[in-house]
Formats: sequence, structure tokens, C-alpha cells
Amino acid sequence: MSWKPNRHSHLTIHEQIVEWIKSRIERGDWTVGTKLPTQRQLAAQCEVNRSTVQLALDELRADGWLESKVGSGVYVANNVWNMHLRKVQPNWKKHIESSIYKPNYHTIQLINEFEQNDRIIRLGTGELSPELLPTKLLEQSLQEISLEQKAIGYSSPQGSEKLRGILCKYLKARGIETAPENILIVSGALQALQLIAMGLLEQGSIVFQEQPSYLHSVHPFQSAGMRMISVLRNSRLGGHLRKIKRNRQSLFYCVPTLNNPTGHSWSLEEKKHLYEVCKELQIPIIEDDVYHELLFQRPSPPIKSFDTSGQVLYIGSVSKTLSPGLRIGWVVAPEPVVKRLADIKMQTDYGSSAFSQEIVAHWISTGLYDIHLENLRTQLKKRAAFVEGLLEQHFQKVASWKNSEGGFYIWLRFHEPVVNKALFLKLLHYHVLINPGYIYETRDLHHIRLSYAYASLEELKEGLLTLLELIK
Amino acid sequence: MSWKPNRHSHLTIHEQIVEWIKSRIERGDWTVGTKLPTQRQLAAQCEVNRSTVQLALDELRADGWLESKVGSGVYVANNVWNMHLRKVQPNWKKHIESSIYKPNYHTIQLINEFEQNDRIIRLGTGELSPELLPTKLLEQSLQEISLEQKAIGYSSPQGSEKLRGILCKYLKARGIETAPENILIVSGALQALQLIAMGLLEQGSIVFQEQPSYLHSVHPFQSAGMRMISVLRNSRLGGHLRKIKRNRQSLFYCVPTLNNPTGHSWSLEEKKHLYEVCKELQIPIIEDDVYHELLFQRPSPPIKSFDTSGQVLYIGSVSKTLSPGLRIGWVVAPEPVVKRLADIKMQTDYGSSAFSQEIVAHWISTGLYDIHLENLRTQLKKRAAFVEGLLEQHFQKVASWKNSEGGFYIWLRFHEPVVNKALFLKLLHYHVLINPGYIYETRDLHHIRLSYAYASLEELKEGLLTLLELIK
Repeated sequence: MSWKPNRHSHLTIHEQIVEWIKSRIERGDWTVGTKLPTQRQLAAQCEVNRSTVQLALDELRADGWLESKVGSGVYVANNVWNMHLRKVQPNWKKHIESSIYKPNYHTIQLINEFEQNDRIIRLGTGELSPELLPTKLLEQSLQEISLEQKAIGYSSPQGSEKLRGILCKYLKARGIETAPENILIVSGALQALQLIAMGLLEQGSIVFQEQPSYLHSVHPFQSAGMRMISVLRNSRLGGHLRKIKRNRQSLFYCVPTLNNPTGHSWSLEEKKHLYEVCKELQIPIIEDDVYHELLFQRPSPPIKSFDTSGQVLYIGSVSKTLSPGLRIGWVVAPEPVVKRLADIKMQTDYGSSAFSQEIVAHWISTGLYDIHLENLRTQLKKRAAFVEGLLEQHFQKVASWKNSEGGFYIWLRFHEPVVNKALFLKLLHYHVLINPGYIYETRDLHHIRLSYAYASLEELKEGLLTLLELIK
Repeated sequence: MSWKPNRHSHLTIHEQIVEWIKSRIERGDWTVGTKLPTQRQLAAQCEVNRSTVQLALDELRADGWLESKVGSGVYVANNVWNMHLRKVQPNWKKHIESSIYKPNYHTIQLINEFEQNDRIIRLGTGELSPELLPTKLLEQSLQEISLEQKAIGYSSPQGSEKLRGILCKYLKARGIETAPENILIVSGALQALQLIAMGLLEQGSIVFQEQPSYLHSVHPFQSAGMRMISVLRNSRLGGHLRKIKRNRQSLFYCVPTLNNPTGHSWSLEEKKHLYEVCKELQIPIIEDDVYHELLFQRPSPPIKSFDTSGQVLYIGSVSKTLSPGLRIGWVVAPEPVVKRLADIKMQTDYGSSAFSQEIVAHWISTGLYDIHLENLRTQLKKRAAFVEGLLEQHFQKVASWKNSEGGFYIWLRFHEPVVNKALFLKLLHYHVLINPGYIYETRDLHHIRLSYAYASLEELKEGLLTLLELIK
């Protein structure tokens, strides 16, 4: 928030705060039922004591502008429009509640919100630490980029042809033979899932997933009316899928390399098994491969590399490796699928940032990307070892884990079912943010997704020890 | 397409083409029912004669890999999988046809496709000509941008705080008082509409629009199950809206400044009239204001500037002014609405490109943007005058129009109902692409949206004369 009281005004500070809040309500910025920032937040913003803020809020409450709800906070009063402004306004609350899209789970909304807070220690964030991002190199590379007039206009439906050509070569090294016409550039992997939900499935379609699954924490499919079904990959998988699927459209979503949230990677045999099962049942596979560059050992080939039936929709991205701020990912798929998804993307946002696409093309084609990845893996390996050391030293009695094979995560399992929302909230109170297992599988109260990629080493230590203390 | 035959191979050129096409089919890139590029396109790609391509296609047809459909083209044959590959593949066609999202209208798909063709004269494109984009200046400005580590990570849900702060000042000059918390950064205005559809409306909700309407040519609302109803803004508007709306959720979408496709701007009184009518009926207004910087005269204040009921969702963008490739726009709305839309955006694509946001922040805050706009208006004015000159010289007998007030468009009305799909296709044959009126209003066979912003002056002249000839 940018407003601050004026120390030289003829009004007192608290009068100014009162007037400012009234004006926000009058202007419709804060509609009926809007929750105000906390006293602490308001005091910080206005750079005044909390008592000054309290005085202002008390006055507004007394005048009927605001109302308190016990244990929840201060809200714009229900009858403020009748009382003070003699006007009606749209019932936004009703609009929001009756609309199509599901809100994020409360815990995830809180995670999104608190991730903006600089003072918080983020133990679960699925993102590279700012210090691991090649910020200076990116900045320098901007100077080497020459823009073509055509490139900064509206994009072609499938995205920059230059970038798609470069990706073909890049994907070849990953064992995938493809052509630019089989690639769609998207604004990150999540958008790919969104487009697949809208463009290839009907309401009531089934999306199979492993358990736990990243897909439980976002819901592109659920919001579009699809059913998510978690399955085990064992010898009876085929019969199981067949029984559930029957005649319905379905998809199988998986992260075979460095799974999110568990960090686990499948063997080549496991990949082939799933492919064969899905091929027989004609169930397309979404292979989410956004972490493979971060494997400490050489990765085994992706499912897409032995897909001869046009069965696999393969997703890649630079969000986990170069910069999430670029918002660039890609889908490799049969041509009719790519054309369909591109058509919907054109209807949704008219393509991804041409500037971001130029930057990614530059980094991959010049080899800057490969050099960066080499360095990044070294850094991540060090961080993983540091956290594993802390776990061995302090967590042996309360939890178990497998050492990391790469990527960001350790799927830390507590012996006791202690990871509930109360723990999540209590940790927030101590400025520690975790990604609890229950956002990846509702009934899981044992795990947290521990990320060694984001917080600094000192923060990781402090956060883990705070966690340990609260659990004990 | 990147593949080309190898002149030094032991295989003949036509054998190589046959093998290449087979491999695309085997790999699943071209699934059953995929339409192949035309002979002409294949010949151009392979840099061979059409007869060589024909020979290859004939052979593949004879062997059952391909099949022709009269007047439509060559397709991957239906039984190719049984015959040649003894395997099944997902029925992508069924997936696509039964899925949720509507495909673009065929004419619009053709427009999207042919806009990629360099040889076509684009008479209707709603985009600045490459020569009007400040490409060199944008390239130079990249060198002045310093990135902060935090800025290139995942964005905060509402977008870059820096950019939102800068936009507050920018919007103030447009008469809109707002705060960073009331702004959401989006990837262009179309995404704003998409988020509003998903986040504020239910299936069966009504979206009112003027006739003709840009919204008829894209369908974020229709695909989400909303009903579009076109209305006239006259003295009976209130009663009319009330009767249709009844208890349903509804919105009023409008482009009051430099309407798309008509180029018309409302008077201040018209804006106030709509606001009062909608306020009484509690119908929120979407004010799409992406063209206002291009008005040749000073624009009158937007509806949002006198919105005291939090009724107006205001949309702005740099796509029509600076570069569509940036994919940056914004929504100004009451806080609960902005929070709701931001939550959905986080679930959709995790925010817009941080790089694009930095560039826009730089251009607006340094004043580069204002200088560019000044120059752009001058250029557009010259182009408008040129086209109006052509129209006066050649079109007086067949059509009527109003001279442009700014922006990109002249809404050219032919006296006879000649603007049908046959004309559209015939013009394509002559490499001229128009935006026919029927994509903005189904029954309109009189208008085309003539854009003087995209094609070069020579192309504009050639295209218009071709159009005139075909119509006569």
C-alpha cells in the first residue's frame, strides 16, 4: 500500500487515517464485507503506533463504517452503503461465490500470501532461491538480444518459430525426436494443464494421478469439472484403470522424473510399464518433465522418447531452472492436439511474452543454459547435503526420509501424524512457512515437502529447528 | 517445418519424402485424420517441384497411408494404424470434439492462420504495423533495465508491485484514483475477460454487449457457458436490461473509447447514462479502455473515473500501443474482485512475465511511453488520412464510412450485403485478408473492419483496389 499520513497536515494522524479509510470505502475499493488489513499491518504501512490505528478503527466502528467479527478481524460494515452513502453496489460476494472456478484451498492461499512476506522462512517453496537465479547473467544477456519487428507483434498461435526450432534440438538431447509443428509454447507448465483440461476433456472425464500428487494442490482439472482419481502403479494397474475408466475420456498425469512432492524418479522399466498399460487402454499420458535438468545423476529417457502411438503429451519448462519470472514452458504432442491447444491459447491470452521467448531462445541456443544448469546442480547438491546433515543430526528420532536424487525436495515423513493445519498455523506465527503433505493428499498428516532450494542455509537451519521444537 | 530432403542421399527425393511422411505418422506426430499441408506448401518446404510431392503422395495413397477427401485435401488414412502399424492410438479427434472449450469460428481460425503468411495483405488486422512498433528503442531499453533477484522469481499474485505503483500514477492522469491493491496485472486484456468469466460469473449468467461487438469474435464468456445479449443504448435501455436480467448474474461489456470494431467513441453523457442505468440495476460494467491513448483528440474521462459504487472493472493494456508481444495489461477493480481474479490467475499461469512487467514499468515511469504515444498518434493520423483519401477516390459509389477519430479502424459499410464468406475466401485467393463484419455480428453482411494500422501504404492501396474489383 502506498498511502501514508502527511505529518504536516492540519488534520491529526488518526483523523487522516479515518478519512483515508472512508475514501477507500466510498470509492468502492473496499466493498461491503472486505476484510481490512490487520492493525499491525496498517500501523506498519502508515508508520504510526498501533494505538493510533486502533483509535481510528474504533471511531469508524462507532460510526457504523466498520464492524468486527470475533477472532477474525475488521470488515467493511454490511449496512455502510445505506447508512453513509445512500447507494447500492454490485453484490460482489454473491458473484464470487456462485462463479465457476474453485478458489484455491485456504492453506494454499495462505502460502501464496505469506510467500510475499520477506520476514518469513520458506521451508517448502518450490522455487529457486533468488541467489540461485542467474540474475546478473540474465541482465547482461538482455544486451545481446536483438529484437525483430515481427517478433514483438502478436505471436503465431504455437509461439515463436525460432524458439520451437531451438527446442527441437534441445529435446533431441533428451531423447525426443520432434518437429516445430509438434511444439506449443505456453506460459509455464500449469498453463499447459489448463489448456489440456479445456481442450481435450469433457466434464466428468477422469484424470488419474499418483498419490500424493502435485495436482492436488492446484486444480486446473477439478475446476473444469473433471474427476481426479489417485492410483497405485503396481501389477494390477491395468485392470484397475480399465474398471474405473469404462467408456469415459481419461488421462494419466505423472511426474516420472523427480516427482513433486516426493522427489522420487521412476526406473526405465516403470516408465515402460505405464506406457504399455496406457497404450492398451488408449489413455493419453501427461508427462510433466519440468525437473529433469536438476537430477544429480544422468536422467533416464522420458516416456515420450519411446512413444510411438502419439500417446504422450510431454511438458517442459524453464521455471524450475532458469527463472519462473520468464513464464515459459512447452508442450510436445501430436499435431492435432497442438493445434487444438494453440487455438484455445489464442482465445485465452494471445500467446506468451515475446520477450521471454527471445530470452529463452538466446539462453538455450548459445549454451548459456547448459553452463548454468551445470553450476545449478552443484549448488543444489551442496544445499541438499546441508539439509540432510541437519536432518541426521536432529530429526532421526521423529522422522524418516530418503536422501535427495536432485531437484528441490525431500519428502520428510514424521513418525506421528503431527502435520495438521494447527501446526501449519502455529509455524506461521513463528514466521516459518511449510508445505504440509495434506495439500498433496488430503488425509496425509505425516509429511512435509521440504525444499532445500529456496531459503538460505541459515534460514533452513533456523526453520527446521523451530519446526522440531513445535513438534516436540 | 524444418525438414528438407538431402540432395546427397542414396534415396531419390520422392523416396525421402515418402519416408519422412511415414515417420511422422509412425511417431504419432500426424495422427489418424490429420490434414496434411497442401502440395504447394510441401513443395515450398522441401524446395522441390510440386510433381515430386505429388508422386510421393500418390504412392502413400496407393499404400493406404493417406486418403484424399474431394475438395478438402489429403489426410492420414483412417485405417493406417491397423494396416501398417498394428497398434492403437488415443482417439484425439473424439477428445477434442467432446471437450469443454469452443473452437474459434472457422473464419477466425483462418484469419489467425493467414496472419502468419508474409505474402498476405492484411486489411483488417487489429495490430500496429511492425514499422510502427518502437523495436529499436525497446531493444535499447533492455540495456537500461536492471533486474532484481526477487523480481524474476514467481510473481506476487497481483503482479509486480513496482509496476502497479507506476500504473497508479499513470491512471491518475486518465482521471482514475486507485491504489496498487486495486490493480491486477494480466497477460493482455483478453486474459482479463477470461478471468472475469471464470471468477465472477456462473453458467447461465448474462453478458450484455453492444452490437456489433469485439466479444463476438472471441469467446471467453461463451465458452464458460454465459449468454451474450446484444442491446441498444437508448432511452429504454434500463427497462430492457431489467426485463432480461431478472435475478440472474450479469455484466455489461463495453468499449466506450474507440470501439472495436466501429472506432466510435461515446460522449461523456452516454457514459454517465450507462453508469446510472447499471448502477440502479447493480449490473457491473467491464470498461475495456485499451485504445484511449490512440484518440487523435483529447479523450473524455472513462466511466471508471466517476465510479463511486465499485461497479466498474476497468481494463487497460499496452498491446495496442507499445507491443502486443509484451502481453501486459491490467484490471482496476474493488479489492475483493482483484483478490479473486488474482487467485484464479495464480491457478492458471502463476502470473505474467516478470521481464515484460519490468519493461512496461521502465517505459511508463521514464516517460518513454508518452513520447512514443505522441509520435504514434501522428503516424496513425497520416495513415488514416491516406486510407480516407483512397476511399473518397474509389469507394464513394459502393460504400459509406465515417472518418477516423483515432485508433486503428474504419467501419466501412457497403451499400449492398456483399461481405459474405465467399468474398472472404475469394479475397484470400488474391492474398488479401479482411475482417468481415459477420465475425462481430452474425447477420452483418455490409461491413468490414478496415484497419489502417497494419499494412503498408502500398499494400493498403493494392488490397483496397482488389477488394473493390471483386465487389464490382
